Amino acid sequence: MNIIEPRTLPGFMELLPNEQVLFNQMKEKIQKTYEKFGFLPIDTPVIEMSEVLLAKAGGETEKQVYSFNKGDSNLTLRFDLTVPLAKYVAAKYNELSFPFRRYQIGKVYRGERAQRGRFREFYQCDIDVIGDGELNIINDAEIPAIMNETFKELGLENYTIHINNRKLLNGLFEYNNIMEKSADVMRTIDKIEKIGIETVIEILEDFGIEKNSINNIMEFINIKGTNDEKIEQLENLNIDNELFRSGLNELKDVIKYIRLFNVEEKCFEIDLSIARGLDYYTGTVYETILNDYKEIGSICSGGRYNNLAGFYTDKKLPGVGMSIGLTRLFFILNDIGLIKTDKKSISQVLIVSMVDDLKYAINTANTLRANNINTEIYFDNKKIKAKFKYADKLKIPYVIVIGEDEINNGVLTLKNMETGEQDSVSLEQVVEKVK
Amino acid sequence: MNIIEPRTLPGFMELLPNEQVLFNQMKEKIQKTYEKFGFLPIDTPVIEMSEVLLAKAGGETEKQVYSFNKGDSNLTLRFDLTVPLAKYVAAKYNELSFPFRRYQIGKVYRGERAQRGRFREFYQCDIDVIGDGELNIINDAEIPAIMNETFKELGLENYTIHINNRKLLNGLFEYNNIMEKSADVMRTIDKIEKIGIETVIEILEDFGIEKNSINNIMEFINIKGTNDEKIEQLENLNIDNELFRSGLNELKDVIKYIRLFNVEEKCFEIDLSIARGLDYYTGTVYETILNDYKEIGSICSGGRYNNLAGFYTDKKLPGVGMSIGLTRLFFILNDIGLIKTDKKSISQVLIVSMVDDLKYAINTANTLRANNINTEIYFDNKKIKAKFKYADKLKIPYVIVIGEDEINNGVLTLKNMETGEQDSVSLEQVVEKVK
Repeated sequence: MNIIEPRTLPGFMELLPNEQVLFNQMKEKIQKTYEKFGFLPIDTPVIEMSEVLLAKAGGETEKQVYSFNKGDSNLTLRFDLTVPLAKYVAAKYNELSFPFRRYQIGKVYRGERAQRGRFREFYQCDIDVIGDGELNIINDAEIPAIMNETFKELGLENYTIHINNRKLLNGLFEYNNIMEKSADVMRTIDKIEKIGIETVIEILEDFGIEKNSINNIMEFINIKGTNDEKIEQLENLNIDNELFRSGLNELKDVIKYIRLFNVEEKCFEIDLSIARGLDYYTGTVYETILNDYKEIGSICSGGRYNNLAGFYTDKKLPGVGMSIGLTRLFFILNDIGLIKTDKKSISQVLIVSMVDDLKYAINTANTLRANNINTEIYFDNKKIKAKFKYADKLKIPYVIVIGEDEINNGVLTLKNMETGEQDSVSLEQVVEKVK
Repeated sequence: MNIIEPRTLPGFMELLPNEQVLFNQMKEKIQKTYEKFGFLPIDTPVIEMSEVLLAKAGGETEKQVYSFNKGDSNLTLRFDLTVPLAKYVAAKYNELSFPFRRYQIGKVYRGERAQRGRFREFYQCDIDVIGDGELNIINDAEIPAIMNETFKELGLENYTIHINNRKLLNGLFEYNNIMEKSADVMRTIDKIEKIGIETVIEILEDFGIEKNSINNIMEFINIKGTNDEKIEQLENLNIDNELFRSGLNELKDVIKYIRLFNVEEKCFEIDLSIARGLDYYTGTVYETILNDYKEIGSICSGGRYNNLAGFYTDKKLPGVGMSIGLTRLFFILNDIGLIKTDKKSISQVLIVSMVDDLKYAINTANTLRANNINTEIYFDNKKIKAKFKYADKLKIPYVIVIGEDEINNGVLTLKNMETGEQDSVSLEQVVEKVK
């Protein structure tokens, strides 16, 4: 037969079973945390009509998507979970209860140039709260509380959730009458660490921005200190602008409530430098940094938006949400050795029989499974050494050996694969030990 | 703004959140059961190179698949989880431990004509055991035991797993020297209920099959009775053919071991009429019928195959497995009202505050979540009636009401939404009651 090389496309993660066990545990922990906060699952199709999915998308998105014709239809694979959410909420508006708290965990597709750590197929784990017309600011504080809980569940430490409110910078620009130059100003400010304060001021002057305004901007970006100190300095700027005032009040509320949600002070910080998707987010924005691995960039981001589904409905649907790019996060954490898990295998017990009659082995397995212990029996006729090697490779923590002696005495030999300890025990004792 | 109608492609299931909760519970129960038997998860890409994915496929498959070009590559969406498994095992042969017990639960794509109950995107939930060169027959008994356990977990009753062995019929044909006519004979036999025994015999005579052989075939298809009676009658056919003998021995082993796995006698039955994928399965085959809904056809099928990955490797990899088409199964069970679930909502508790200061509400939520109780707070400033309506629509079983009185007395008002019962209780009592 003509043999075809069994290869997987570049940019597509395909893990070995032991790694997949770890990946799935992370996914399940994220899901459990989302559910702990009462978010509802949805599961939208991977394929959508291009006309629907790309309603909003610009040229960059269209270049990256997987689109194709099938019959008379032009179809596209989803490139995020936000556009499908917008479609979903607009289509099912009358059947949903608001605020609509939904999570979705699923694969999305982007035809980016493949490179190490970049994936064309990857899991996103999203939560969003969608309001009908309005949405309470406390939601903006609950989202980072959920991020925090999720990271803790994943065993991460030394991370900081950076929080900003886009209305602050926009209000500052509006107040200084430089809204039309905001993109240029932002780009210049972003370079401050590279080019220095003086050069930034020079460039801003070149843009024709007044001295007063430049001072105002520099005061703003120089704000430092604790969260409370930053809020105090923002107050002291005395910027008499409605947008700025509103942003500051929202930020104060978010900080107040995030504390009530028991998020430790060291785990969040006001960061006036983060902007995120200028065209999309309208209020609170978040990024999350692993402090020992800042070069990785944000591992979980999100924010507040005025209107989720303007392309699909006249209803005003404000929302706030966040997304974890799980495939990339798994890849990174695996790389730097930060994956912490409770279990490393699916099976908790491997049963190995030294006798041909497997009745005793199967009975044992039946009982263990009835006690919710994941159990497998090694059926193949191999040497005992091969069977132990199998348990070892699969990281199964316990092996039960059943031979003539065990059957005659009504006991089991239980070996703890980690300690090497071996005991002659009853079936009830196995259940107890393994659980 | 130009509004685009937010529609979903026909043939793609997109559930409301309450239905999705039920769907996900079914999916999780299937996964848990697969894991209880020690199967390892894998997660292969949805997109594969067409050359790889369609290595084996015939014209029918190619017509139904979603294929497209991206850059220089011709790509195809997976249409099942078996071909990706074959690719996976062949590619990672050296890194896997055999027997390789894997499960995969994921979406597959078939561009079939959309019609009620037929889906173009649907979940398959597969388990397979792959041997390296050989694979013990006990695996063929464990697979239906896992089916059985899965159906029980899903709350199904009155189902029968039909079991056959393809070697029996092939051995019968070989013994009668009519192998080259086997397809014609099979097709004729299949019509026996419609056209009657006499006509079948006439047609077989027309095929030039000898009287002895026709008698032999008719004896075979007339076998009836209990499982043990069927085996006895198969023995009594006295067919002196190696293939037949081997099939009968395998079937006897499967029946012997399926009983050891505690599968009730009424839940499985030898059914010599099922054939399944003539070109693929080589030994044991399974189909599962809901006895009150036979018209639905098999809801879970599978079998034994000689060689999984002949298109990708020279290694001989025999396997046995089964697949549940979850999307269709959910659709059917929902239709006939057979979905049984433990919980109907994600949140177990909704907290409703009558006071503006949400400190008390948030503290309560923090404690409940720390006790692994899924909890949400209704943040929006709505009338109490609207908040209860929300709980009702989402089928949240408990609502906690917090007002001035509750705060002053350090208690909570807990309402059981099903019974209407309302109590003044402590936080600890809430934890106890809800758990």
